[in-house]
Amino acid sequence: MKVVLIRHGESIANFENYWTGWLDVPLTTKGENQAKAAGVKIKEANIHFDAVFTSVLQRAIVTSQLVLEASNQLWLPVVKTWRLNERHYGALIGKNKDEMIAIYGVEQVKKWRRGYFEVPPLELVGNFDRRYQNLAIQDLPKGESLNLTVKRVVPLWQDQIVPQLLKGKNILIAGHGNSLRALVKYLEAVPENEMETIKIPNAAPIVYEFDERLHIISKNML
Amino acid sequence: MKVVLIRHGESIANFENYWTGWLDVPLTTKGENQAKAAGVKIKEANIHFDAVFTSVLQRAIVTSQLVLEASNQLWLPVVKTWRLNERHYGALIGKNKDEMIAIYGVEQVKKWRRGYFEVPPLELVGNFDRRYQNLAIQDLPKGESLNLTVKRVVPLWQDQIVPQLLKGKNILIAGHGNSLRALVKYLEAVPENEMETIKIPNAAPIVYEFDERLHIISKNML
Repeated sequence: MKVVLIRHGESIANFENYWTGWLDVPLTTKGENQAKAAGVKIKEANIHFDAVFTSVLQRAIVTSQLVLEASNQLWLPVVKTWRLNERHYGALIGKNKDEMIAIYGVEQVKKWRRGYFEVPPLELVGNFDRRYQNLAIQDLPKGESLNLTVKRVVPLWQDQIVPQLLKGKNILIAGHGNSLRALVKYLEAVPENEMETIKIPNAAPIVYEFDERLHIISKNML
Repeated sequence: MKVVLIRHGESIANFENYWTGWLDVPLTTKGENQAKAAGVKIKEANIHFDAVFTSVLQRAIVTSQLVLEASNQLWLPVVKTWRLNERHYGALIGKNKDEMIAIYGVEQVKKWRRGYFEVPPLELVGNFDRRYQNLAIQDLPKGESLNLTVKRVVPLWQDQIVPQLLKGKNILIAGHGNSLRALVKYLEAVPENEMETIKIPNAAPIVYEFDERLHIISKNML
């Protein structure tokens, strides 16, 4: 059983200097081409998926679509879930990082960016967005530490992905830098103070192979 | 409650002279642009969907994706089902229409194309295709009359679409010339000998509005 993780291709926010999180920004043309190239690699590696999971943000959705198109697997069922969304940056969403440094100082901004348990200033974002209408107000994040992101990503793995893997299925997961780091932390039991070591480049397929008890047999990047 | 039917944009087969059916041909660039334009019309008409249904053929899937992208609704759940596939042309799939006229005569070919109950020569297509692996061999069409297409499209309407409409949801259905004609026949009780009157142009959104008992209130093309 294989699980392939893929972070979205370059988005218009990846080269801007602000927090994106749940902002629904599109891919750049380069990002689209990265996603297509990833699909070609998956096709060449002869990986056949049975199901696909992605976030409800277009940069991950379109990445998954382009991967599936390039690997002739567009017909696969795709589940779109907020649990794979990028980390929710609360009141920092849409804010310029340099401006926040000027207001809050370098150390505080560094903590927000790198501290595992550091929660950003809270702000309800998306409560009027139709895509989150089936979430109770208590479940809609108002700002997440990476720790909180891990907590809401893991149930997707446990409840929806593990049962498929145990049936021998291969799964594609298209997500974001931090939702995929969250998953890697869980799968590899990465300590909180070593999270910096987990690098997830744009649109680079990371292939995990599991045995029948879901121990990791191998991990490699295409 | 609204249901919008949309036939895929121009595919590479729409301007070739052969039977396509379950062949999985891509859209042309024109077809992609038609689908995007349809999405813009849906956005301008302020139609918000709750769920999307499409076939397992890429020309319909990509059409639905482009419509959703252009109308900012990419996050919607999409169900992909063989029940919305194009009519299955059996042994005629991939065959040139003029060559078939030369072999079988004009009248027979006309019957295959226009006769409501006329079943083409049978041939199992797709039995080694992974997308149909969950279909029993008895359920996999080997060649359909338009009547047989109607019979396999209608259960999708009854079982998966009606329950959503009765909850007040709006639905997008991306399909093919004959799978959508089949649905129109059912919805409007079109007699078998008047099927020629049902025209479904490429990528033109057809909007049905229903009352709470699912009587048709209005029908118009965007």
